[in-house]
Amino acid sequence: MKYVAVLGYGTVGSGVVYVIDHNNSIVSANSGDEMQVKYILDLRDFPGDPNESKVVHDVDVIMNDPEVSIVCETMGGVGAAYKFTKAALEKGKSVCTSNKELVAKHGAELMKIARDNGCSYLFEASVGGGIPVIRTLTTALTAERITQIAGILNGTTNFILSKMEKESAGFDETLKTAQELGYAEQDPTADIEGHDTARKISILADIMSGHFVDSDKVDTTGITAVSADDMANALSSGYTIKLLGIATRGDDDSISTMVAPFLVRKDHPLAGVSDVFNAIFVTGNMLDETMYYGKGAGKLATASAVVADVIDAARKGSSCMYKGWDETPVRESSSSVKFRYMVRCKKGSAEDIASSCGAEALDGNASFITGKMSGSEFDALCEKYGDAVLSGIRIYE
Amino acid sequence: MKYVAVLGYGTVGSGVVYVIDHNNSIVSANSGDEMQVKYILDLRDFPGDPNESKVVHDVDVIMNDPEVSIVCETMGGVGAAYKFTKAALEKGKSVCTSNKELVAKHGAELMKIARDNGCSYLFEASVGGGIPVIRTLTTALTAERITQIAGILNGTTNFILSKMEKESAGFDETLKTAQELGYAEQDPTADIEGHDTARKISILADIMSGHFVDSDKVDTTGITAVSADDMANALSSGYTIKLLGIATRGDDDSISTMVAPFLVRKDHPLAGVSDVFNAIFVTGNMLDETMYYGKGAGKLATASAVVADVIDAARKGSSCMYKGWDETPVRESSSSVKFRYMVRCKKGSAEDIASSCGAEALDGNASFITGKMSGSEFDALCEKYGDAVLSGIRIYE
Repeated sequence: MKYVAVLGYGTVGSGVVYVIDHNNSIVSANSGDEMQVKYILDLRDFPGDPNESKVVHDVDVIMNDPEVSIVCETMGGVGAAYKFTKAALEKGKSVCTSNKELVAKHGAELMKIARDNGCSYLFEASVGGGIPVIRTLTTALTAERITQIAGILNGTTNFILSKMEKESAGFDETLKTAQELGYAEQDPTADIEGHDTARKISILADIMSGHFVDSDKVDTTGITAVSADDMANALSSGYTIKLLGIATRGDDDSISTMVAPFLVRKDHPLAGVSDVFNAIFVTGNMLDETMYYGKGAGKLATASAVVADVIDAARKGSSCMYKGWDETPVRESSSSVKFRYMVRCKKGSAEDIASSCGAEALDGNASFITGKMSGSEFDALCEKYGDAVLSGIRIYE
Repeated sequence: MKYVAVLGYGTVGSGVVYVIDHNNSIVSANSGDEMQVKYILDLRDFPGDPNESKVVHDVDVIMNDPEVSIVCETMGGVGAAYKFTKAALEKGKSVCTSNKELVAKHGAELMKIARDNGCSYLFEASVGGGIPVIRTLTTALTAERITQIAGILNGTTNFILSKMEKESAGFDETLKTAQELGYAEQDPTADIEGHDTARKISILADIMSGHFVDSDKVDTTGITAVSADDMANALSSGYTIKLLGIATRGDDDSISTMVAPFLVRKDHPLAGVSDVFNAIFVTGNMLDETMYYGKGAGKLATASAVVADVIDAARKGSSCMYKGWDETPVRESSSSVKFRYMVRCKKGSAEDIASSCGAEALDGNASFITGKMSGSEFDALCEKYGDAVLSGIRIYE
């Protein structure tokens, strides 16, 4: 028998308990041993819950029980979650988590502690929910020099952009609908400003580079400035707009990371990723293009990914440890990656501004596409032409 | 140092040598040891080839060299490839292959021999080329009850169907173009009649069920009967046509497999998989929908998947063995899975035929959509109405 403890009985935590229970014969067969949840740590009580008797309030009950060999941390945050994860790993208990904030911040340290104590720190669910992208990058694409990872990594913003696309609606009203439908939080800042995507792309960049990528340093722009006119303009030129997290490897093996709204051609596989779905597009020097698609969030999809880690930990102990990264900061690219921009201008002014860039105005003399330029080159253009430039969105290609 | 031998210096075999050479620092780092190709077995000589000196004509040179711990079988077929694979595994050498025919036919036996001899038989490249679907099914979706796998698994037929969609062209002329461009073989039977897809979906069904699925028993229809009118009809109703291999698990855990052209809604992720790309859509009871997309064939993508297996074998010996299947035949579903059909009829006759099915004719009285029916129920309908039924294509949903 293998005993698991779940820290935090919220959405993901209760999902983990449900998956281990509901798919128990599959989970146990793949673990090589019967799997059972022994404790659930939560500050609250859950009277009437079928797992009421497993709820404990004192983490030491779990830490001091040698029967518990695997801990699922589904609390979130970097406070108690960090402390408890460290304590469990130091006791030789493997920890499986969906906590992207903690992985992005302390992943390297926690993996080292796990390695030193003969257990594993696993976090498949921290990026892309149910999409097994971390396992794919660390165990399947091992013969590749990965040159770029571009992902739709946040369900809330993708839901909003998909709805703006379908209904020609503006950002503010769509956000309101998303909140009413429960697809956006009451304080949606972390999603709509791109911080959530920044954490996830920094974890993927950690894996890609083998070094620490600080999520606070990712060049991040959210979707609050994307207007109904931007979307209409994109669609009329054969594009849609997606919030992408992109990590790019330079020829010198430096890494550049950014989060921003991008125009994506309608026939590109990422363009078809709608609503709350996520997808990660990985380019390698041999494989060329691959994409991994699925539910980026949600109770059961995320829980399924946590339990896949639990199964790996049960079966292989410390040898299932992902190829991780160390605490050395990654070498960042000295210049930002250049993209073409679709620039929207005051009607009648596109021709002038375009010609200053050696480009040509599109229909209606209200927009044009630049050559490849960096973010600061684009900022200089905006400064030069002031109010005449209404918006500029990079083109992913 | 880890030494590899490559059996067969054709497209995939030479790709394997190229990937190990070109990405050597990555391949070696991930293997935990320097990796080198020591022998290439081929009947031919390759004067002037940079690897000329590694070419041997006698397989015993490889079998009897204890330094060779991993063999890549990239010969194809079930004759010499089967014999050499068996011999290598019996000597304790792991074998990595792209040979779908051999895996479909003798996979269970070869995995057993590998297990008995402390080595691995690995075949990521046998399905979906560079898409790591076998590793995903066996190591990532381990907490799932997988209910259905539906794949675009053949690049030739997907190229033809994509071109028919874009150019409103007929099957025969498009096949000819595909042959001229090198996307279809001079004898295209195995591709266009669906046999290649049948082999691949049977391997995925092997993994899904844990038992042997005979590819010769997969209910297989190719794309030769798909006409320009069928495609036009599909597109006008919001669908495209894709050749899908589908394995479905029944509530009683029996498995049903089929290969056939299907109507796929234009907003479904599989609809956007164009040209020679492949994609596998996997449905699980917790994850819901996930999809894996990439190059299904081609020298370097396929070779990259073979080398990922080589790396696993080098790093983990026999413990990287996929969770495979045994030689017991799978329990097949007693009744075939039911689908709705889009039926195209002689102009003016759709109303009559539709009403006999309790359905309604679509615009122009030349087509209608049935309720869910089995293949034999549809055949009975065709028999009843004779020439008035021009075609019927299942709807994937």
